[in-house]
Amino acid sequence: MKKEQFYDYESRLSRPINVKIPELQTGERLRHVIFADQFTRGILERVTRTADRIRTVHKSKDGCRFLRELLPHIKAMLYFTQPSTRTFLSFMSACQLLGVSCAEVRDPKTSSESKRESPIDSMRMFSSYFDIVIMRSNQPQFAECCAYLMNDLGETSRRSVPIINAGAGADEHPTQALLDIYTIQRALTFDHPKDSSKWTWFEELRQTEPGLRRGIGGKKIGFCGDVRRGRTVRSLSRLLTLYDDMSMYFVSPPHPKLRIAPEMKSLLIDRKAEVREFSTFDDPCGSSSVIENLDVLYMTRLQREHNSPEDEADFANLDFNPYRLTSKLVARMKPYAAILHPFPRDEEFGEIPTSIDADPRAFYFRQARNGMWVRAALLAYLFDVDSQIADYYEKYTAETKDYNTGVL
Amino acid sequence: MKKEQFYDYESRLSRPINVKIPELQTGERLRHVIFADQFTRGILERVTRTADRIRTVHKSKDGCRFLRELLPHIKAMLYFTQPSTRTFLSFMSACQLLGVSCAEVRDPKTSSESKRESPIDSMRMFSSYFDIVIMRSNQPQFAECCAYLMNDLGETSRRSVPIINAGAGADEHPTQALLDIYTIQRALTFDHPKDSSKWTWFEELRQTEPGLRRGIGGKKIGFCGDVRRGRTVRSLSRLLTLYDDMSMYFVSPPHPKLRIAPEMKSLLIDRKAEVREFSTFDDPCGSSSVIENLDVLYMTRLQREHNSPEDEADFANLDFNPYRLTSKLVARMKPYAAILHPFPRDEEFGEIPTSIDADPRAFYFRQARNGMWVRAALLAYLFDVDSQIADYYEKYTAETKDYNTGVL
Amino acid sequence: MKKEQFYDYESRLSRPINVKIPELQTGERLRHVIFADQFTRGILERVTRTADRIRTVHKSKDGCRFLRELLPHIKAMLYFTQPSTRTFLSFMSACQLLGVSCAEVRDPKTSSESKRESPIDSMRMFSSYFDIVIMRSNQPQFAECCAYLMNDLGETSRRSVPIINAGAGADEHPTQALLDIYTIQRALTFDHPKDSSKWTWFEELRQTEPGLRRGIGGKKIGFCGDVRRGRTVRSLSRLLTLYDDMSMYFVSPPHPKLRIAPEMKSLLIDRKAEVREFSTFDDPCGSSSVIENLDVLYMTRLQREHNSPEDEADFANLDFNPYRLTSKLVARMKPYAAILHPFPRDEEFGEIPTSIDADPRAFYFRQARNGMWVRAALLAYLFDVDSQIADYYEKYTAETKDYNTGVL
Repeated sequence: MKKEQFYDYESRLSRPINVKIPELQTGERLRHVIFADQFTRGILERVTRTADRIRTVHKSKDGCRFLRELLPHIKAMLYFTQPSTRTFLSFMSACQLLGVSCAEVRDPKTSSESKRESPIDSMRMFSSYFDIVIMRSNQPQFAECCAYLMNDLGETSRRSVPIINAGAGADEHPTQALLDIYTIQRALTFDHPKDSSKWTWFEELRQTEPGLRRGIGGKKIGFCGDVRRGRTVRSLSRLLTLYDDMSMYFVSPPHPKLRIAPEMKSLLIDRKAEVREFSTFDDPCGSSSVIENLDVLYMTRLQREHNSPEDEADFANLDFNPYRLTSKLVARMKPYAAILHPFPRDEEFGEIPTSIDADPRAFYFRQARNGMWVRAALLAYLFDVDSQIADYYEKYTAETKDYNTGVL
Repeated sequence: MKKEQFYDYESRLSRPINVKIPELQTGERLRHVIFADQFTRGILERVTRTADRIRTVHKSKDGCRFLRELLPHIKAMLYFTQPSTRTFLSFMSACQLLGVSCAEVRDPKTSSESKRESPIDSMRMFSSYFDIVIMRSNQPQFAECCAYLMNDLGETSRRSVPIINAGAGADEHPTQALLDIYTIQRALTFDHPKDSSKWTWFEELRQTEPGLRRGIGGKKIGFCGDVRRGRTVRSLSRLLTLYDDMSMYFVSPPHPKLRIAPEMKSLLIDRKAEVREFSTFDDPCGSSSVIENLDVLYMTRLQREHNSPEDEADFANLDFNPYRLTSKLVARMKPYAAILHPFPRDEEFGEIPTSIDADPRAFYFRQARNGMWVRAALLAYLFDVDSQIADYYEKYTAETKDYNTGVL
Repeated sequence: MKKEQFYDYESRLSRPINVKIPELQTGERLRHVIFADQFTRGILERVTRTADRIRTVHKSKDGCRFLRELLPHIKAMLYFTQPSTRTFLSFMSACQLLGVSCAEVRDPKTSSESKRESPIDSMRMFSSYFDIVIMRSNQPQFAECCAYLMNDLGETSRRSVPIINAGAGADEHPTQALLDIYTIQRALTFDHPKDSSKWTWFEELRQTEPGLRRGIGGKKIGFCGDVRRGRTVRSLSRLLTLYDDMSMYFVSPPHPKLRIAPEMKSLLIDRKAEVREFSTFDDPCGSSSVIENLDVLYMTRLQREHNSPEDEADFANLDFNPYRLTSKLVARMKPYAAILHPFPRDEEFGEIPTSIDADPRAFYFRQARNGMWVRAALLAYLFDVDSQIADYYEKYTAETKDYNTGVL
């Protein structure tokens, strides 16, 4: 977007986030989804509960039909000018679950921008035909601008639709943080049939770890790899401070361009998290080593495509080997620990070798599928049909005889 | 398409349009939509009335469901080898409103043409799988050829589907003309909640303009910009002659390559329109100036991408400044005047600066949304479900208590 | 796919096909569709019967609605990194017929592979969001690998979905063989309203050909053109050996690189087919010539894009003229003979000139449409709703009064 077009928004874009957030919602209720920081503990619980209900209800064909009848009046625009098959397909299948019609623009060359149309005009066009715009752009803050544009239109009684930020450059990617939280929560509830090997697993675990409790609070979360530049690490770690007594261990090369940023560290500490930095998984931690302490390990790709030539020179002598997970390391992890990765993983570097994929602690493929469920739940929330899902779920679980827990 | 393939069609393509039109319909009823001139006053009224009904019914979720159940048996092929996001998305969302399944081919490189398949074979393939082909091509008259191909197939009892021309090069773009007419009609009815500020606005306007009447007839329509080469200007002006006592004012650079073509002018005059040409909006007209006289102003983009090097040289000394709308000019327009633009507008040239977007006379974004409604109405007409919509609308409006006018 | 990734699969890929087939099914039932050789006579009959029922039921709007309600819970991924509009659209419309939601990846550049993700990871991502993957790749055996991957996942209770091979390089294209068989079967049943000119046509034909019987068995099938490299010829000829007393006549340039391969010929002979080779349609055959003997003629494109420079040199002196069909040749064919072509045909070479398109023996456009029906039937079979279609069909045909044969 050209400078001139920001004229209306420039001053708004530079405000602190706590001033911005109220503008993106109606009271407590989210209208646009632009920042991970918009998610409160209450919203996280509401959306993840809906996600659980959707996946349960979806097990039956009637349930599928019920879901597909929820939003037949909604048309979604998937505007993905920055390529991302994973996020794109995840949103698309979330829409399909709820009967939302989708249209896509993925190649900016097919768009009117070739006729010198402004991105703002393109966005108003999308909002003319569609009821929500889910967008991924390589222009940082473009989704935020679009949200302000929609607000301005709404204020003058013109057509205005919600905007979902599906990732913008190295910037925010709020729904990734949402699916990460959802995956961690499911892993640490210890009772989902797909997330654990047995129904009584929690009791079993308590034999050896009597202090273990269900849920995210009080857990030790490790982040490994590019912990400074990876937006997923930044978003997720901030969200985790919504839970009590969190410990966050950052395992990264001890280089100022790769270690967690000091201001990020301070922010987490201010929010009451215990924050520690390590160079390897073998570094001592408590009575053992880092790897043995973790409840969750969030691996990331070393984003070499973001390296400047200067970075390449700086990093030439670093040993990146410790930031590859190995089967040996995994064997030392807690039996219930969950390994996550925002994907795609780097086939060449191999931060998670495929030999680990079959380990029950490998949660990264389930994590992808969780993305679909939680994005469907977010859409249900935004269009206010999540209470209908709750009602159907109650009826469904009451009727389903082979169903013996309320937790699913 | 290669010359040899036209062998069957060449003689048909060169016939006068009034001979062609009957071949594109079954009696009075349109079968293919190729030319704006196929729209009679009766068809325009029928389709725009259906568009009004669709948008009303669509306000309720049940209404949406009713609409989505109308054409679940129809599959549409959107064959857009000439890029056009706007028209593409508008048709796609129109299809989605009625439950029509869509498939798209937008990149000719993904098609079998790379294996030296003829375009006619491609078209027969599309007609094998789909029930209607909506196409935009940069080959003028290709849609027309396809309509003849379908007719020939139908005559020998083979599969034959309707063709909609969604714009072909600098050629015809009939559904654009349709949405322009629909927008003008809504603007000049003076009672749509979204099109005016109050329900009693018409009465208010009559205080100062006692001769004002509802509807398109008798109005003064201005066209500004590239009035010669813009296909939308040509199509729309011809269609407007279906209404009585029209005045059409063409505001363009006084250059033979940019002024309205003499044969076009004669045609409009033959069809009883008053036609006048001006160089600026300030030119005298009646007791005031052009801008103050207009009921509707149709702005267009100066299509510089169609300029030959020779054109560039010819136009170098022309002053294009008068063909930019300004807030000052808008302020002088009638309070109810409607500003339209077929979009995209040229961000660089700025024929309509964004500062005008918030003016109530700015109809160009509503115009885009009208495109969706009227295209849905056209599909409903072609597949003969518009009377079902009329029935549902009657029931719906009878039941809707907070509804106090039949005009919506 | 890189070599290292085949490590798991390499040994499996090199096994004989009869060892592989059981792994792609559950007992008799197909799970993945990778090879044409998976189709037994029983499966062919089941799927083609379903295809017949779908097209009958689809004639009514209620029938369309019934079909669209069969698989609303299924989401299909169409992963077509090798361009193929025809197969892509055919599968897409087949999905739409049954209410299956579709998502597509056609441009590998938009995928995460640009971030160095492995194709196996991409496939697991697709299987996370979708319920079936329909894929076309230019990597031979990639679909087969994916089927093994899914099997391995399934065995460890992880998410696993069926894979359909929609064509891979010069390799297998099983659903093309399926639609070819279906088209031949319909042509040789002599009583489909669209496939013949009259209801009593079979009786008529029996006046002059008293030995004529309905069905594929005992017929003479000609293959013309690139009979060695064309995968459709190889697949179809193998499938035809499932029927009794088949004769197969291969008409091709007498060059070792273009004639049917000796091992292919032996295989067909081993399976009890009569196999003969000819250089032209005029070659003597029985008491007349080849062209007069054929019940079915399967024409193919000379796949010049697969020619190496060496091939070009080798073929320079060959006369390819005899491998173009002409109206004169068609006039000599049996009145009921069916001409097929897998399409696209080569406009430049003209192996089937368009002048033949209107001949009642030209089945190649119906063949394309048959592809849609039979692919829908295959999906219905894979997701086990074909018996529901049978039930509806029974009810439908019992109710439909103007319906006077059970064969449709």
